[in-house]
Amino acid sequence: MYDIVTVGEILAEILTERTNQEFTSPGILLGPYPSGAPAIAIDQAAKMGASTAIIARVGRDDLGKLNIDRLASDGVDVSHIIQTSENTTGVAFVTYFSDGSRRFVYHFAKAACGELSPSDVDDAAVKNSRFLHIMGCSITGSPSLGASVMKALDAAVESGVKVSFDPNIRPELLSGGIMTYYRRILDACDVLLTGKGEMKHLFGDADGAVGKLLGEKDRIVVVKDGSRGTSVYTREEAFLAPTYPADEVDPTGAGDSFDGTFLALLCKGENLRTAADFGNAAGALAVAKRGPMEGNSSPSAIDAFRAKSGVAAVADIVNPYAG
Amino acid sequence: MYDIVTVGEILAEILTERTNQEFTSPGILLGPYPSGAPAIAIDQAAKMGASTAIIARVGRDDLGKLNIDRLASDGVDVSHIIQTSENTTGVAFVTYFSDGSRRFVYHFAKAACGELSPSDVDDAAVKNSRFLHIMGCSITGSPSLGASVMKALDAAVESGVKVSFDPNIRPELLSGGIMTYYRRILDACDVLLTGKGEMKHLFGDADGAVGKLLGEKDRIVVVKDGSRGTSVYTREEAFLAPTYPADEVDPTGAGDSFDGTFLALLCKGENLRTAADFGNAAGALAVAKRGPMEGNSSPSAIDAFRAKSGVAAVADIVNPYAG
Repeated sequence: MYDIVTVGEILAEILTERTNQEFTSPGILLGPYPSGAPAIAIDQAAKMGASTAIIARVGRDDLGKLNIDRLASDGVDVSHIIQTSENTTGVAFVTYFSDGSRRFVYHFAKAACGELSPSDVDDAAVKNSRFLHIMGCSITGSPSLGASVMKALDAAVESGVKVSFDPNIRPELLSGGIMTYYRRILDACDVLLTGKGEMKHLFGDADGAVGKLLGEKDRIVVVKDGSRGTSVYTREEAFLAPTYPADEVDPTGAGDSFDGTFLALLCKGENLRTAADFGNAAGALAVAKRGPMEGNSSPSAIDAFRAKSGVAAVADIVNPYAG
Repeated sequence: MYDIVTVGEILAEILTERTNQEFTSPGILLGPYPSGAPAIAIDQAAKMGASTAIIARVGRDDLGKLNIDRLASDGVDVSHIIQTSENTTGVAFVTYFSDGSRRFVYHFAKAACGELSPSDVDDAAVKNSRFLHIMGCSITGSPSLGASVMKALDAAVESGVKVSFDPNIRPELLSGGIMTYYRRILDACDVLLTGKGEMKHLFGDADGAVGKLLGEKDRIVVVKDGSRGTSVYTREEAFLAPTYPADEVDPTGAGDSFDGTFLALLCKGENLRTAADFGNAAGALAVAKRGPMEGNSSPSAIDAFRAKSGVAAVADIVNPYAG
């Protein structure tokens, strides 16, 4: 029995040492770092003490071992990770620019991560979980991985397993079959972990969408709005959890780390306000370290950070559902 | 009209900074470097002044641009390089150990390089060349790339284009269809650029093989034997070109650099002794720089190196063909 299971990509990440350094000429690089949004989230949930597993494919190579070792040592059940000799572990080459943008080169769709197939998804593992966590990047990453995630969704819905969803949108990829997948997951999800910009992409109007989402189903809607804080809406309450000041070194992984923390604390029976506050703190800690999973943190580290920063005052806000 | 055309893999290479540093944990890396054995050889041939082209696939990404820019700036005709959005540019992660061994993680067969298909091979480009250069690693790298190389071989043989072949053996891959490919290329080749260890793998007995190879066809057989020098055999002559003392930093690319230098000088009408001597010098320069293609060098740099090192005295040896 798991608290949280996820189905998605495991990647190795290579970073440039400097901002504005490009992959079009040789230089100093850093890595490989364990990565992949679902892997980062599930690793953080495990660090928070949740019982977790990830269903994924890696190559039978050092980059796969890098990820399996890290996930296992942080407490994730890695027995559902398939090591294949047919592909190499997926890789993301990432560089940041001083305007805040980033550029990726991905070995994804035809790497091990992208060739996870529906038959690799153990329905029993999904059905024996409290949450199935889905990230949009897994849906858009490859047709085979997308279909695998949808198989897990079906198993979850069939068994009443709660579904959490971080759309993680890349708007240019939201076409045709992908949008059908998104709609099915959005319909089913019990916890939506999204960004304000994403809400606009998905629904046009963010406030109206919250009311509509809560009208359709008794669920939790989390809207992250960067330094302006994280709003959480249910049928019963609505509040804003302010973010913590962050010493940003590497923004990748902050949202995933929030997701893992938030879901793990829900599983532990913590209230939503505590879960969101700890999620924000975990996100602030995540961006202070180079490497997408390097900034994942334990409950005690988050506690210490909150104490040092001054614990944020969570405040009630207007609930569009009530309105 | 090209002096030399090659068909094979273009890769980006990522190196660990230190010996014994593994890809199972994060660290400092160097790269990406332009790479791929056929790419290194053809780049070096272009630097020697030969008219060259490479038929290959890269991704439409920064790692592809890295390679195209380098090859083009060194004078290789890059118009036969296909940039695809279906795959990412192939990548080799390479680490060295203090016992001299190295370990690779490859994105090859399902990366752009490995999905070059026979229909991508422009027969006219091959037929309008003096040499088709083939490397064994392209044959073993992926079935599709192997079939593409064989299509080029057929075009070359049909038109009387000379074939040069560096078997570049990985013995564990020499099975079934691959061995059939190897035999066909060995039968056809006019210049065999091989190592003493490879000769044993391919033919059992190195000396006997030289006699047999020359008996079958009027060709050039080059046997590289590391620091013991490079032996060259034809029906007319046999000599040993001693190697130059090398300041080895990174052994990858030495053999490819020899091949490119040797073939380019043959095309320029230089005698075999000069070609082999310059090839050895180019190999010594190649290993003195980090990165597989970074140590490629111009004729003037090779001249200066030979003068500084003291030009090696090429000496006659026994010719097994005559015996």
